[in-house]
Amino acid sequence: MPSIGARAMLRRMRAPIGVFDSGLGGLTVVRAIRAALPDEDIVYLGDTARVPYGTRSPETVVRYAASCARALLRHDVKLLVVACNTVSAVALPELASRFGIPVIGVIEAGAKAGAGISQGGRIGVLATAGTVASGAYERAIHALNPRLEVVAVPAPLFVPLAEEGWTEGAIPEGIADRYLGPLIEAQVDSIILGCTHYPLLRTTIERVLSRSAAPAQVVDSAEALAADLRLVLDEYSLRFSRRDRSGQLRVYVTDQPRSFRDVANRFLGASLGDFPVEAIDLE
Amino acid sequence: MPSIGARAMLRRMRAPIGVFDSGLGGLTVVRAIRAALPDEDIVYLGDTARVPYGTRSPETVVRYAASCARALLRHDVKLLVVACNTVSAVALPELASRFGIPVIGVIEAGAKAGAGISQGGRIGVLATAGTVASGAYERAIHALNPRLEVVAVPAPLFVPLAEEGWTEGAIPEGIADRYLGPLIEAQVDSIILGCTHYPLLRTTIERVLSRSAAPAQVVDSAEALAADLRLVLDEYSLRFSRRDRSGQLRVYVTDQPRSFRDVANRFLGASLGDFPVEAIDLE
Repeated sequence: MPSIGARAMLRRMRAPIGVFDSGLGGLTVVRAIRAALPDEDIVYLGDTARVPYGTRSPETVVRYAASCARALLRHDVKLLVVACNTVSAVALPELASRFGIPVIGVIEAGAKAGAGISQGGRIGVLATAGTVASGAYERAIHALNPRLEVVAVPAPLFVPLAEEGWTEGAIPEGIADRYLGPLIEAQVDSIILGCTHYPLLRTTIERVLSRSAAPAQVVDSAEALAADLRLVLDEYSLRFSRRDRSGQLRVYVTDQPRSFRDVANRFLGASLGDFPVEAIDLE
Repeated sequence: MPSIGARAMLRRMRAPIGVFDSGLGGLTVVRAIRAALPDEDIVYLGDTARVPYGTRSPETVVRYAASCARALLRHDVKLLVVACNTVSAVALPELASRFGIPVIGVIEAGAKAGAGISQGGRIGVLATAGTVASGAYERAIHALNPRLEVVAVPAPLFVPLAEEGWTEGAIPEGIADRYLGPLIEAQVDSIILGCTHYPLLRTTIERVLSRSAAPAQVVDSAEALAADLRLVLDEYSLRFSRRDRSGQLRVYVTDQPRSFRDVANRFLGASLGDFPVEAIDLE
Protein backbone atom coordinates (compact mmCIF):
# COMPACT_ATOMS: atom_id res chain seq x y z
CA MET A 1 0.00 0.00 0.00
CA PRO A 2 1.42 3.39 -0.96
CA SER A 3 2.38 5.83 1.77
CA ILE A 4 0.33 9.00 2.36
CA GLY A 5 2.96 11.00 0.45
CA ALA A 6 2.83 8.67 -2.52
CA ARG A 7 -0.96 8.73 -2.49
CA ALA A 8 -1.05 12.52 -2.47
CA MET A 9 1.47 12.52 -5.30
CA LEU A 10 -0.64 10.08 -7.31
CA ARG A 11 -3.73 12.21 -6.74
CA ARG A 12 -1.79 15.21 -7.93
CA MET A 13 -0.56 13.38 -11.06
CA ARG A 14 -4.12 12.32 -11.87
CA ALA A 15 -5.35 15.93 -11.67
CA PRO A 16 -6.27 17.66 -14.93
CA ILE A 17 -4.23 20.20 -16.86
CA GLY A 18 -5.88 23.63 -16.93
CA VAL A 19 -5.82 25.54 -20.21
CA PHE A 20 -7.29 28.99 -20.76
CA ASP A 21 -7.60 31.57 -23.50
CA SER A 22 -9.59 34.74 -24.06
CA GLY A 23 -11.77 32.88 -26.53
CA LEU A 24 -11.97 29.62 -28.45
CA GLY A 25 -8.66 29.88 -30.36
CA GLY A 26 -6.90 28.12 -27.49
CA LEU A 27 -8.67 24.91 -28.52
CA THR A 28 -5.90 24.51 -31.12
CA VAL A 29 -3.56 24.22 -28.13
CA VAL A 30 -5.90 21.64 -26.54
CA ARG A 31 -5.83 19.73 -29.82
CA ALA A 32 -2.01 19.66 -29.82
CA ILE A 33 -1.88 18.62 -26.13
CA ARG A 34 -4.38 15.79 -26.71
CA ALA A 35 -2.26 14.56 -29.63
CA ALA A 36 0.97 14.66 -27.61
CA LEU A 37 -0.39 13.54 -24.23
CA PRO A 38 -3.55 11.49 -24.86
CA ASP A 39 -3.77 10.20 -21.28
CA GLU A 40 -4.06 13.60 -19.61
CA ASP A 41 -7.38 15.10 -18.53
CA ILE A 42 -7.86 18.70 -19.62
CA VAL A 43 -10.12 21.46 -18.35
CA TYR A 44 -10.42 24.32 -20.85
CA LEU A 45 -11.75 27.77 -20.09
CA GLY A 46 -12.54 30.25 -22.89
CA ASP A 47 -13.37 33.73 -21.62
CA THR A 48 -15.68 34.31 -24.58
CA ALA A 49 -17.61 37.06 -22.76
CA ARG A 50 -14.53 39.29 -22.53
CA VAL A 51 -12.72 38.38 -25.78
CA PRO A 52 -10.58 39.97 -27.18
CA TYR A 53 -7.95 40.68 -24.52
CA GLY A 54 -5.56 42.27 -27.06
CA THR A 55 -7.16 45.69 -26.78
CA ARG A 56 -7.21 45.82 -22.93
CA SER A 57 -4.65 47.49 -20.69
CA PRO A 58 -1.98 45.22 -19.09
CA GLU A 59 -3.61 45.72 -15.65
CA THR A 60 -6.95 44.55 -17.00
CA VAL A 61 -5.33 41.56 -18.73
CA VAL A 62 -3.65 40.51 -15.46
CA ARG A 63 -6.98 40.84 -13.62
CA TYR A 64 -8.86 38.81 -16.26
CA ALA A 65 -6.10 36.17 -16.36
CA ALA A 66 -6.15 35.82 -12.58
CA SER A 67 -9.92 35.26 -12.62
CA CYS A 68 -9.50 32.56 -15.29
CA ALA A 69 -6.73 30.91 -13.29
CA ARG A 70 -8.85 30.94 -10.10
CA ALA A 71 -11.75 29.32 -11.94
CA LEU A 72 -9.46 26.54 -13.20
CA LEU A 73 -7.88 26.03 -9.75
CA ARG A 74 -11.35 25.26 -8.42
CA HIS A 75 -11.05 22.15 -10.65
CA ASP A 76 -7.82 21.29 -8.85
CA VAL A 77 -5.64 21.54 -11.97
CA LYS A 78 -2.02 20.48 -11.56
CA LEU A 79 -0.60 22.96 -14.07
CA LEU A 80 -1.76 26.03 -15.96
CA VAL A 81 -1.34 26.41 -19.72
CA VAL A 82 -1.80 29.97 -20.97
CA ALA A 83 -3.00 29.54 -24.55
CA CYS A 84 -3.59 33.28 -24.93
CA ASN A 85 -0.77 35.29 -26.49
CA THR A 86 -1.82 38.51 -24.78
CA VAL A 87 -1.83 36.88 -21.33
CA SER A 88 1.46 35.09 -22.08
CA ALA A 89 3.01 38.44 -22.94
CA VAL A 90 2.03 40.33 -19.79
CA ALA A 91 0.79 38.09 -16.98
CA LEU A 92 2.92 34.93 -16.78
CA PRO A 93 5.23 35.86 -13.85
CA GLU A 94 2.29 37.26 -11.89
CA LEU A 95 0.25 34.06 -12.35
CA ALA A 96 3.19 31.81 -11.45
CA SER A 97 3.96 33.70 -8.25
CA ARG A 98 0.33 34.10 -7.21
CA PHE A 99 -0.93 30.55 -7.64
CA GLY A 100 2.05 28.34 -6.81
CA ILE A 101 1.63 25.79 -9.62
CA PRO A 102 3.65 25.52 -12.82
CA VAL A 103 2.48 27.96 -15.51
CA ILE A 104 3.53 27.66 -19.12
CA GLY A 105 2.73 30.08 -21.92
CA VAL A 106 2.38 29.82 -25.63
CA ILE A 107 4.88 32.58 -26.48
CA GLU A 108 7.84 31.09 -24.61
CA ALA A 109 7.14 27.69 -26.16
CA GLY A 110 6.96 29.09 -29.69
CA ALA A 111 10.04 31.25 -29.18
CA LYS A 112 12.04 28.29 -27.87
CA ALA A 113 11.06 26.09 -30.81
CA GLY A 114 11.78 28.86 -33.34
CA ALA A 115 15.16 29.63 -31.80
CA GLY A 116 15.92 25.91 -31.67
CA ILE A 117 15.49 25.22 -35.38
CA SER A 118 16.80 28.51 -36.80
CA GLN A 119 20.02 27.92 -38.74
CA GLY A 120 20.50 31.33 -40.33
CA GLY A 121 19.63 33.28 -37.20
CA ARG A 122 16.66 35.17 -38.62
CA ILE A 123 13.21 34.19 -37.35
CA GLY A 124 9.84 35.30 -38.68
CA VAL A 125 6.72 35.74 -36.56
CA LEU A 126 3.12 35.98 -37.78
CA ALA A 127 0.74 37.27 -35.12
CA THR A 128 -2.12 39.68 -34.47
CA ALA A 129 -1.40 43.41 -34.66
CA GLY A 130 -1.56 43.60 -30.85
CA THR A 131 0.96 40.79 -30.29
CA VAL A 132 3.33 42.18 -32.94
CA ALA A 133 3.16 45.68 -31.43
CA SER A 134 3.79 44.30 -27.93
CA GLY A 135 7.18 42.92 -29.04
CA ALA A 136 6.57 39.85 -26.86
CA TYR A 137 8.05 37.32 -29.31
CA GLU A 138 11.18 39.45 -29.83
CA ARG A 139 11.67 39.66 -26.07
CA ALA A 140 11.16 35.92 -25.59
CA ILE A 141 13.54 35.05 -28.47
CA HIS A 142 16.19 37.55 -27.36
CA ALA A 143 16.02 36.18 -23.82
CA LEU A 144 17.13 32.86 -25.34
CA ASN A 145 19.67 34.29 -27.76
CA PRO A 146 20.18 38.03 -28.17
CA ARG A 147 21.92 37.56 -31.53
CA LEU A 148 18.82 36.17 -33.25
CA GLU A 149 17.05 38.57 -35.56
CA VAL A 150 13.26 38.71 -35.43
CA VAL A 151 10.93 39.93 -38.19
CA ALA A 152 7.32 40.12 -36.97
CA VAL A 153 4.40 40.73 -39.34
CA PRO A 154 0.75 41.25 -38.34
CA ALA A 155 -1.68 38.94 -40.15
CA PRO A 156 -5.11 40.12 -38.93
CA LEU A 157 -7.21 38.57 -41.73
CA PHE A 158 -6.12 35.07 -40.69
CA VAL A 159 -8.40 35.31 -37.62
CA PRO A 160 -11.74 35.67 -39.46
CA LEU A 161 -10.55 33.26 -42.17
CA ALA A 162 -9.94 30.61 -39.48
CA GLU A 163 -13.24 31.38 -37.74
CA GLU A 164 -15.16 31.15 -41.01
CA GLY A 165 -13.34 27.95 -41.92
CA TRP A 166 -12.18 29.57 -45.17
CA THR A 167 -8.65 28.19 -44.99
CA GLU A 168 -7.85 26.93 -48.50
CA GLY A 169 -8.15 28.24 -52.04
CA ALA A 170 -7.09 31.27 -54.04
CA ILE A 171 -8.22 33.95 -51.56
CA PRO A 172 -6.59 32.55 -48.40
CA GLU A 173 -3.46 31.87 -50.49
CA GLY A 174 -3.48 35.42 -51.84
CA ILE A 175 -3.79 36.77 -48.30
CA ALA A 176 -1.02 34.48 -47.06
CA ASP A 177 1.10 35.60 -50.00
CA ARG A 178 0.80 39.21 -48.90
CA TYR A 179 1.61 38.54 -45.25
CA LEU A 180 4.48 36.16 -46.03
CA GLY A 181 6.04 38.50 -48.61
CA PRO A 182 8.10 40.55 -46.14
CA LEU A 183 9.23 37.37 -44.33
CA ILE A 184 10.34 35.67 -47.56
CA GLU A 185 12.11 38.86 -48.59
CA ALA A 186 13.89 39.04 -45.24
CA GLN A 187 15.00 35.42 -45.81
CA VAL A 188 13.87 34.14 -42.41
CA ASP A 189 14.49 30.42 -42.00
CA SER A 190 11.70 29.69 -39.54
CA ILE A 191 8.27 31.24 -39.09
CA ILE A 192 6.45 31.05 -35.76
CA LEU A 193 2.64 30.98 -35.95
CA GLY A 194 2.13 33.38 -33.06
CA CYS A 195 -1.67 33.30 -32.82
CA THR A 196 -3.84 30.39 -31.76
CA HIS A 197 -5.99 30.74 -34.89
CA TYR A 198 -3.18 30.44 -37.40
CA PRO A 199 -2.52 26.67 -37.32
CA LEU A 200 -5.77 26.29 -39.29
CA LEU A 201 -4.05 28.07 -42.17
CA ARG A 202 -0.82 26.08 -41.91
CA THR A 203 -1.37 24.09 -45.15
CA THR A 204 -1.97 27.27 -47.11
CA ILE A 205 0.98 29.04 -45.48
CA GLU A 206 3.28 26.12 -46.31
CA ARG A 207 2.00 26.01 -49.87
CA VAL A 208 2.91 29.67 -50.36
CA LEU A 209 6.31 29.16 -48.70
CA SER A 210 7.08 26.14 -50.89
CA ARG A 211 7.18 28.48 -53.88
CA SER A 212 10.03 30.55 -52.40
CA ALA A 213 13.72 29.87 -53.13
CA ALA A 214 14.49 28.52 -49.64
CA PRO A 215 11.21 27.70 -47.89
CA ALA A 216 11.21 28.65 -44.21
CA GLN A 217 10.13 26.04 -41.69
CA VAL A 218 6.81 26.66 -39.95
CA VAL A 219 6.72 26.50 -36.15
CA ASP A 220 3.30 25.94 -34.64
CA SER A 221 3.31 27.48 -31.14
CA ALA A 222 0.56 25.06 -30.08
CA GLU A 223 2.66 22.01 -30.99
CA ALA A 224 5.72 23.59 -29.43
CA LEU A 225 3.76 24.15 -26.24
CA ALA A 226 2.56 20.54 -26.15
CA ALA A 227 6.18 19.32 -26.48
CA ASP A 228 7.26 21.75 -23.75
CA LEU A 229 4.40 20.65 -21.53
CA ARG A 230 5.55 17.05 -21.67
CA LEU A 231 8.99 18.11 -20.39
CA VAL A 232 7.56 20.27 -17.62
CA LEU A 233 5.22 17.47 -16.47
CA ASP A 234 8.20 15.09 -16.32
CA GLU A 235 10.32 17.64 -14.49
CA TYR A 236 7.65 18.09 -11.79
CA SER A 237 6.78 14.36 -11.78
CA LEU A 238 3.25 15.30 -12.80
CA ARG A 239 2.84 13.22 -15.95
CA PHE A 240 0.20 10.56 -15.78
CA SER A 241 -0.31 7.45 -17.90
CA ARG A 242 -3.66 5.82 -17.37
CA ARG A 243 -4.73 2.39 -18.48
CA ASP A 244 -8.46 2.60 -17.83
CA ARG A 245 -9.50 5.25 -20.38
CA SER A 246 -8.15 8.05 -22.55
CA GLY A 247 -7.87 11.58 -21.19
CA GLN A 248 -11.11 13.56 -20.80
CA LEU A 249 -11.83 17.10 -21.86
CA ARG A 250 -14.20 19.52 -20.16
CA VAL A 251 -14.89 22.93 -21.70
CA TYR A 252 -16.09 26.05 -19.86
CA VAL A 253 -17.00 29.32 -21.54
CA THR A 254 -18.13 32.62 -20.08
CA ASP A 255 -20.53 33.21 -22.96
CA GLN A 256 -21.75 31.10 -25.87
CA PRO A 257 -21.52 33.33 -28.90
CA ARG A 258 -23.37 32.53 -32.11
CA SER A 259 -21.86 29.77 -34.27
CA PHE A 260 -19.96 28.79 -31.13
CA ARG A 261 -19.95 25.05 -31.85
CA ASP A 262 -18.88 25.35 -35.49
CA VAL A 263 -15.92 27.52 -34.56
CA ALA A 264 -15.00 25.38 -31.55
CA ASN A 265 -15.08 22.16 -33.59
CA ARG A 266 -12.87 23.73 -36.22
CA PHE A 267 -10.23 24.74 -33.66
CA LEU A 268 -10.42 21.50 -31.72
CA GLY A 269 -10.26 19.36 -34.87
CA ALA A 270 -12.94 17.14 -33.32
CA SER A 271 -16.57 17.42 -32.36
CA LEU A 272 -17.19 19.40 -29.21
CA GLY A 273 -20.45 17.46 -29.07
CA ASP A 274 -18.48 14.63 -27.49
CA PHE A 275 -17.40 16.80 -24.56
CA PRO A 276 -19.36 18.60 -21.86
CA VAL A 277 -19.55 22.37 -22.34
CA GLU A 278 -20.74 24.59 -19.50
CA ALA A 279 -21.15 28.31 -19.13
CA ILE A 280 -19.65 29.93 -16.01
CA ASP A 281 -19.57 33.47 -14.69
CA LEU A 282 -16.21 34.92 -13.71
CA GLU A 283 -17.38 38.36 -12.62
CA MET B 1 -34.23 90.88 -28.73
CA PRO B 2 -35.44 87.29 -28.67
CA SER B 3 -37.64 86.12 -25.83
CA ILE B 4 -36.36 83.69 -23.20
CA GLY B 5 -38.09 80.85 -25.03
CA ALA B 6 -36.50 81.77 -28.34
CA ARG B 7 -33.10 82.11 -26.66
CA ALA B 8 -33.38 78.69 -25.06
CA MET B 9 -34.44 77.30 -28.41
CA LEU B 10 -31.46 78.88 -30.13
CA ARG B 11 -29.13 77.46 -27.47
CA ARG B 12 -30.67 74.08 -28.06
CA MET B 13 -30.26 74.36 -31.85
CA ARG B 14 -26.61 75.32 -31.41
CA ALA B 15 -25.94 72.24 -29.26
CA PRO B 16 -23.89 69.44 -30.80
CA ILE B 17 -25.16 66.15 -32.19
CA GLY B 18 -23.99 63.16 -30.15
CA VAL B 19 -22.84 60.08 -32.05
CA PHE B 20 -21.62 56.85 -30.46
CA ASP B 21 -20.43 53.43 -31.50
CA SER B 22 -18.72 50.51 -29.81
CA GLY B 23 -15.52 51.41 -31.62
CA LEU B 24 -14.21 53.59 -34.41
CA GLY B 25 -16.38 52.28 -37.26
CA GLY B 26 -19.03 54.87 -36.42
CA LEU B 27 -16.68 57.53 -37.78
CA THR B 28 -18.02 56.57 -41.24
CA VAL B 29 -21.38 57.85 -39.94
CA VAL B 30 -19.69 61.05 -38.70
CA ARG B 31 -18.16 61.44 -42.15
CA ALA B 32 -21.59 61.15 -43.81
CA ILE B 33 -23.17 63.58 -41.32
CA ARG B 34 -20.40 66.14 -41.86
CA ALA B 35 -20.93 65.88 -45.62
CA ALA B 36 -24.71 66.31 -45.35
CA LEU B 37 -24.81 68.82 -42.48
CA PRO B 38 -21.49 70.72 -42.48
CA ASP B 39 -22.71 73.38 -40.02
CA GLU B 40 -23.49 71.01 -37.17
CA ASP B 41 -21.11 70.39 -34.27
CA ILE B 42 -20.58 66.72 -33.47
CA VAL B 43 -19.36 64.93 -30.36
CA TYR B 44 -18.32 61.36 -31.11
CA LEU B 45 -17.79 58.66 -28.51
CA GLY B 46 -16.14 55.34 -29.43
CA ASP B 47 -16.27 52.77 -26.63
CA THR B 48 -12.98 51.25 -27.79
CA ALA B 49 -12.28 49.68 -24.39
CA ARG B 50 -15.37 47.46 -24.60
CA VAL B 51 -15.52 46.80 -28.36
CA PRO B 52 -17.01 44.57 -29.77
CA TYR B 53 -20.58 44.76 -28.45
CA GLY B 54 -21.80 42.06 -30.89
CA THR B 55 -20.82 39.22 -28.59
CA ARG B 56 -22.42 40.68 -25.40
CA SER B 57 -25.84 39.84 -24.01
CA PRO B 58 -28.70 42.30 -24.78
CA GLU B 59 -28.76 43.41 -21.12
CA THR B 60 -25.06 44.24 -21.24
CA VAL B 61 -25.49 46.09 -24.55
CA VAL B 62 -28.29 48.21 -23.06
CA ARG B 63 -26.12 48.97 -20.01
CA TYR B 64 -23.10 49.93 -22.16
CA ALA B 65 -25.28 52.03 -24.50
CA ALA B 66 -26.82 53.90 -21.55
CA SER B 67 -23.36 54.74 -20.21
CA CYS B 68 -22.31 56.05 -23.65
CA ALA B 69 -25.50 58.12 -23.89
CA ARG B 70 -24.96 59.58 -20.40
CA ALA B 71 -21.39 60.58 -21.30
CA LEU B 72 -22.66 62.39 -24.42
CA LEU B 73 -25.49 64.10 -22.53
CA ARG B 74 -22.85 65.66 -20.29
CA HIS B 75 -21.89 67.56 -23.46
CA ASP B 76 -25.46 68.76 -23.73
CA VAL B 77 -26.11 67.06 -27.08
CA LYS B 78 -29.44 67.85 -28.73
CA LEU B 79 -29.91 64.45 -30.36
CA LEU B 80 -28.35 60.99 -30.15
CA VAL B 81 -27.17 59.07 -33.21
CA VAL B 82 -26.57 55.38 -32.58
CA ALA B 83 -23.92 54.42 -35.14
CA CYS B 84 -23.58 50.93 -33.67
CA ASN B 85 -25.67 48.21 -35.31
CA THR B 86 -25.76 46.07 -32.17
CA VAL B 87 -27.07 48.95 -30.05
CA SER B 88 -29.53 49.97 -32.78
CA ALA B 89 -30.88 46.43 -32.77
CA VAL B 90 -31.55 46.09 -29.05
CA ALA B 91 -31.40 49.39 -27.16
CA LEU B 92 -33.08 52.14 -29.19
CA PRO B 93 -36.50 52.29 -27.45
CA GLU B 94 -34.83 52.08 -24.03
CA LEU B 95 -32.50 54.99 -24.83
CA ALA B 96 -35.29 57.12 -26.28
CA SER B 97 -37.52 56.64 -23.25
CA ARG B 98 -34.75 57.04 -20.70
CA PHE B 99 -33.08 60.21 -21.94
CA GLY B 100 -35.89 62.27 -23.44
CA ILE B 101 -34.08 63.50 -26.57
CA PRO B 102 -34.51 62.23 -30.13
CA VAL B 103 -32.54 59.03 -30.81
CA ILE B 104 -31.93 57.73 -34.31
CA GLY B 105 -30.26 54.47 -35.24
CA VAL B 106 -28.32 53.22 -38.19
CA ILE B 107 -30.49 50.13 -38.82
CA GLU B 108 -33.80 51.98 -39.17
CA ALA B 109 -32.17 54.50 -41.52
CA GLY B 110 -30.64 51.80 -43.72
CA ALA B 111 -33.84 49.75 -43.75
CA LYS B 112 -35.91 52.78 -44.74
CA ALA B 113 -33.56 53.68 -47.60
CA GLY B 114 -33.39 50.07 -48.83
CA ALA B 115 -37.16 49.67 -48.72
CA GLY B 116 -37.55 53.03 -50.46
CA ILE B 117 -35.51 52.17 -53.53
CA SER B 118 -36.41 48.49 -53.92
CA GLN B 119 -38.40 47.92 -57.10
CA GLY B 120 -38.49 44.14 -57.20
CA GLY B 121 -39.24 43.74 -53.51
CA ARG B 122 -36.15 41.73 -52.63
CA ILE B 123 -33.48 43.44 -50.51
CA GLY B 124 -29.99 42.20 -49.69
CA VAL B 125 -28.15 42.97 -46.46
CA LEU B 126 -24.42 42.61 -45.81
CA ALA B 127 -23.54 42.74 -42.12
CA THR B 128 -21.48 41.09 -39.39
CA ALA B 129 -22.41 37.56 -38.32
CA GLY B 130 -23.92 38.96 -35.12
CA THR B 131 -26.14 41.49 -36.89
CA VAL B 132 -27.28 38.92 -39.46
CA ALA B 133 -28.12 36.38 -36.76
CA SER B 134 -30.03 39.00 -34.77
CA GLY B 135 -32.46 39.49 -37.67
CA ALA B 136 -32.55 43.22 -36.90
CA TYR B 137 -32.60 44.39 -40.53
CA GLU B 138 -35.39 41.94 -41.42
CA ARG B 139 -37.47 43.23 -38.52
CA ALA B 140 -36.84 46.87 -39.44
CA ILE B 141 -37.66 46.26 -43.13
CA HIS B 142 -40.77 44.19 -42.35
CA ALA B 143 -41.98 46.90 -40.00
CA LEU B 144 -42.00 49.20 -43.03
CA ASN B 145 -43.40 46.68 -45.49
CA PRO B 146 -44.04 43.05 -44.52
CA ARG B 147 -44.13 41.95 -48.16
CA LEU B 148 -40.47 42.80 -48.80
CA GLU B 149 -38.13 39.83 -48.94
CA VAL B 150 -34.79 40.12 -47.14
CA VAL B 151 -31.64 38.10 -47.89
CA ALA B 152 -28.94 38.77 -45.27
CA VAL B 153 -25.36 37.52 -45.68
CA PRO B 154 -22.56 37.80 -43.11
CA ALA B 155 -19.37 39.39 -44.46
CA PRO B 156 -16.93 39.15 -41.52
CA LEU B 157 -13.70 39.62 -43.51
CA PHE B 158 -14.78 43.11 -44.57
CA VAL B 159 -14.07 44.37 -41.04
CA PRO B 160 -10.32 43.60 -40.92
CA LEU B 161 -9.99 44.58 -44.60
CA ALA B 162 -11.43 48.02 -43.78
CA GLU B 163 -9.28 48.35 -40.63
CA GLU B 164 -6.13 47.40 -42.55
CA GLY B 165 -7.07 49.77 -45.37
CA TRP B 166 -6.88 46.86 -47.82
CA THR B 167 -9.98 47.84 -49.76
CA GLU B 168 -9.08 47.47 -53.44
CA GLY B 169 -7.43 44.85 -55.63
CA ALA B 170 -7.83 41.20 -56.45
CA ILE B 171 -8.13 39.89 -52.89
CA PRO B 172 -10.81 42.30 -51.61
CA GLU B 173 -12.67 41.76 -54.92
CA GLY B 174 -12.41 37.98 -54.54
CA ILE B 175 -13.78 38.22 -51.00
CA ALA B 176 -16.58 40.56 -52.13
CA ASP B 177 -17.32 38.14 -54.96
CA ARG B 178 -17.89 35.34 -52.47
CA TYR B 179 -20.11 37.37 -50.15
CA LEU B 180 -22.12 38.93 -52.98
CA GLY B 181 -22.64 35.60 -54.78
CA PRO B 182 -25.76 34.57 -52.82
CA LEU B 183 -27.24 38.08 -53.15
CA ILE B 184 -26.69 38.20 -56.92
CA GLU B 185 -28.14 34.72 -57.20
CA ALA B 186 -31.20 35.76 -55.20
CA GLN B 187 -31.60 38.71 -57.60
CA VAL B 188 -31.91 41.35 -54.90
CA ASP B 189 -32.28 44.85 -56.35
CA SER B 190 -30.75 46.78 -53.48
CA ILE B 191 -28.03 45.87 -51.00
CA ILE B 192 -27.79 47.58 -47.61
CA LEU B 193 -24.27 47.94 -46.16
CA GLY B 194 -25.28 46.98 -42.62
CA CYS B 195 -21.97 47.51 -40.85
CA THR B 196 -20.19 50.80 -40.24
CA HIS B 197 -16.95 49.40 -41.70
CA TYR B 198 -18.36 48.38 -45.07
CA PRO B 199 -18.63 51.79 -46.81
CA LEU B 200 -14.83 51.63 -47.16
CA LEU B 201 -15.32 48.66 -49.50
CA ARG B 202 -18.13 50.26 -51.48
CA THR B 203 -16.07 50.81 -54.68
CA THR B 204 -14.99 47.17 -54.70
CA ILE B 205 -18.53 45.95 -53.92
CA GLU B 206 -19.94 48.05 -56.76
CA ARG B 207 -17.25 46.81 -59.14
CA VAL B 208 -18.24 43.20 -58.43
CA LEU B 209 -21.95 44.03 -58.76
CA SER B 210 -21.39 45.80 -62.09
CA ARG B 211 -20.45 42.43 -63.59
CA SER B 212 -23.83 40.90 -62.77
CA ALA B 213 -26.76 40.87 -65.22
CA ALA B 214 -28.83 43.45 -63.31
CA PRO B 215 -26.56 45.23 -60.81
CA ALA B 216 -28.22 45.87 -57.45
CA GLN B 217 -28.06 49.37 -56.01
CA VAL B 218 -25.89 49.83 -52.94
CA VAL B 219 -27.42 51.54 -49.89
CA ASP B 220 -24.94 52.98 -47.43
CA SER B 221 -26.59 53.01 -43.98
CA ALA B 222 -24.33 55.90 -42.94
CA GLU B 223 -25.51 58.10 -45.80
CA ALA B 224 -29.09 57.02 -45.21
CA LEU B 225 -28.76 58.00 -41.58
CA ALA B 226 -27.35 61.42 -42.47
CA ALA B 227 -30.34 62.05 -44.76
CA ASP B 228 -32.72 60.87 -42.04
CA LEU B 229 -30.98 63.02 -39.47
CA ARG B 230 -31.61 66.13 -41.53
CA LEU B 231 -35.34 65.36 -41.55
CA VAL B 232 -35.44 64.68 -37.82
CA LEU B 233 -33.57 67.91 -37.02
CA ASP B 234 -36.06 69.83 -39.14
CA GLU B 235 -38.99 68.08 -37.55
CA TYR B 236 -37.81 69.01 -34.04
CA SER B 237 -36.63 72.48 -35.16
CA LEU B 238 -33.14 71.55 -34.11
CA ARG B 239 -31.23 72.18 -37.32
CA PHE B 240 -28.65 74.92 -37.13
CA SER B 241 -26.99 76.93 -39.90
CA ARG B 242 -24.05 78.94 -38.69
CA ARG B 243 -22.27 81.70 -40.54
CA ASP B 244 -19.22 82.12 -38.32
CA ARG B 245 -17.44 78.77 -38.86
CA SER B 246 -18.01 75.21 -40.05
CA GLY B 247 -19.19 72.53 -37.63
CA GLN B 248 -16.64 71.21 -35.15
CA LEU B 249 -15.90 67.62 -34.23
CA ARG B 250 -14.72 66.34 -30.87
CA VAL B 251 -13.80 62.68 -30.43
CA TYR B 252 -13.80 60.72 -27.18
CA VAL B 253 -12.59 57.15 -26.81
CA THR B 254 -12.54 54.87 -23.79
CA ASP B 255 -9.19 53.39 -24.85
CA GLN B 256 -6.66 54.23 -27.53
CA PRO B 257 -5.79 50.93 -29.17
CA ARG B 258 -2.68 50.54 -31.28
CA SER B 259 -2.85 52.00 -34.79
CA PHE B 260 -5.81 53.99 -33.49
CA ARG B 261 -5.14 57.10 -35.60
CA ASP B 262 -4.57 55.24 -38.86
CA VAL B 263 -7.85 53.38 -38.50
CA ALA B 264 -9.75 56.47 -37.34
CA ASN B 265 -8.48 58.57 -40.26
CA ARG B 266 -9.50 55.86 -42.69
CA PHE B 267 -13.06 55.74 -41.34
CA LEU B 268 -13.40 59.48 -41.02
CA GLY B 269 -11.99 60.13 -44.49
CA ALA B 270 -10.02 63.01 -42.99
CA SER B 271 -7.19 63.48 -40.54
CA LEU B 272 -8.17 63.05 -36.92
CA GLY B 273 -5.09 65.16 -36.22
CA ASP B 274 -7.25 68.19 -36.94
CA PHE B 275 -9.70 67.33 -34.15
CA PRO B 276 -9.27 66.97 -30.41
CA VAL B 277 -9.28 63.37 -29.18
CA GLU B 278 -9.63 62.61 -25.48
CA ALA B 279 -9.78 59.43 -23.49
CA ILE B 280 -12.62 59.08 -20.96
CA ASP B 281 -13.60 56.40 -18.49
CA LEU B 282 -17.21 55.17 -18.53
CA GLU B 283 -16.97 52.59 -15.76
